Amino acid sequence: MSRLTDYSRLCIHTITTKPWSIEEACGNFSDAGVKGITVWRNALEGKALMATGRMIRDRGLQIVSLCRGGFFPSIDAVKRSLALEDNRKAIDEAHALGAPMIVLVCGADPGQPLQESRKQIRDGIQEILPYAREAGVKLAIEPLHPMYAADRSAINTLAQANEMAAAIDSPWVGVAVDVYHLWWDPDLETEIKKCGRMNKLFAFHICDWKTNPEDLLNDRGLMGEGCIDLPLIRTWIEAAGFNGFIEVEIFSNRYWAMDQHRFLSEIKEAYLNC
Amino acid sequence: MSRLTDYSRLCIHTITTKPWSIEEACGNFSDAGVKGITVWRNALEGKALMATGRMIRDRGLQIVSLCRGGFFPSIDAVKRSLALEDNRKAIDEAHALGAPMIVLVCGADPGQPLQESRKQIRDGIQEILPYAREAGVKLAIEPLHPMYAADRSAINTLAQANEMAAAIDSPWVGVAVDVYHLWWDPDLETEIKKCGRMNKLFAFHICDWKTNPEDLLNDRGLMGEGCIDLPLIRTWIEAAGFNGFIEVEIFSNRYWAMDQHRFLSEIKEAYLNC
Repeated sequence: MSRLTDYSRLCIHTITTKPWSIEEACGNFSDAGVKGITVWRNALEGKALMATGRMIRDRGLQIVSLCRGGFFPSIDAVKRSLALEDNRKAIDEAHALGAPMIVLVCGADPGQPLQESRKQIRDGIQEILPYAREAGVKLAIEPLHPMYAADRSAINTLAQANEMAAAIDSPWVGVAVDVYHLWWDPDLETEIKKCGRMNKLFAFHICDWKTNPEDLLNDRGLMGEGCIDLPLIRTWIEAAGFNGFIEVEIFSNRYWAMDQHRFLSEIKEAYLNC
Repeated sequence: MSRLTDYSRLCIHTITTKPWSIEEACGNFSDAGVKGITVWRNALEGKALMATGRMIRDRGLQIVSLCRGGFFPSIDAVKRSLALEDNRKAIDEAHALGAPMIVLVCGADPGQPLQESRKQIRDGIQEILPYAREAGVKLAIEPLHPMYAADRSAINTLAQANEMAAAIDSPWVGVAVDVYHLWWDPDLETEIKKCGRMNKLFAFHICDWKTNPEDLLNDRGLMGEGCIDLPLIRTWIEAAGFNGFIEVEIFSNRYWAMDQHRFLSEIKEAYLNC
């Protein structure tokens, strides 16, 4: 495995430095030599999308993804239809911004069986697929940690995401691998290989898993701070043919509370050991 | 699937009603018509074990398991050896109490790869197995939810537990299925079948998964309060040949804070809908 020696593949999610506006994030990432940015939709509220996309590119940043679409399942058909509408809106936004891909947090409804939610996810993706294809926007299914199976995603392993992407069988639908969600999986290496063989490995998200997180959602660790063997997983990812951006996605009340310039320096330092 | 119409298969873990001493739990479970008890080691501190076992049986309760052994892995060989010693002590305790089985929370060390922890778990079980067999105490590997993979258990799916039990291949080593840990798993039905076919389905633990738990450890739900389809999973468990006790294991700051007699009534009511 090659060491990371520069920042040519470093992408940061806007949510990682949530206190910064999209303009601040852009400016500061660019000044720091970061090359990619994944834009969360909350950072775009009230913004002119095409102008924002231009601003990002003018600062030398590549837009990697728009986060996020999905949340397809609901026991309520009206809500399912609203979800499809929101996904089409996300595709419009990605197109206007110039983002080539949307990450799908697929959703789940605790009021119905997981099997039903999984079926609705597949139906939902099939439904929006023609719209995405027409807009030239890829869809990346992101399997989420099983602790989110009740209401955030009924897709909880890479095997499930791979199976769904294979079943849908479109070059516009693939998978986003986030180490936070998948590090524990005994089948991770095998499934990363499989994903690569299918040409479905669309994105790679990193952070770390702290022992005894204080919060199920917003206590992710900076790379190196927890127990995920990031260099090992990156070896598998690269052996599977992925050479795209390595995206830092950290939700953390702790890091959001600190000086974001200092945090960005820490991210850069930690990144080189991933 | 048959409905549960009486309490002949109801077992409660002492930890579920943690505020009660073992004597109080015994008396109150027995008065309530509960037939089984799984004893946690913390409830035995300072107690004469054989006398406590006799007291439990005298109240008409069957001891289902002793909780818990395990925690085998460590990067430190001295700690691994202390863990083996503690497991032998747990076997002594089970034997003295008259408990036919110990539940193993297998352990993990965030300072080493999961693969290494998994190897140490298998080595640890192999190491204590002769001692357990001699004492007539079975060992049940309990796969834990992936959110505990850093430090509580590197065995996180039923597939892993089944594979380990199959590899060890002793009638004294089997698996404990706890719905809280496994409900999300798309392979759950298949693996429960497999476990049954191998005659390794030693225990069945129930509670519920609340959406957005406040705490990773102590916010389990009472059956019916969350999103686990307990009747469905019980169908699978019984189709796999299991007809033993159905064990209520709830860690909950909320329930521990309430009147335990009322809680016990709620458990009995909820149980009949499982």
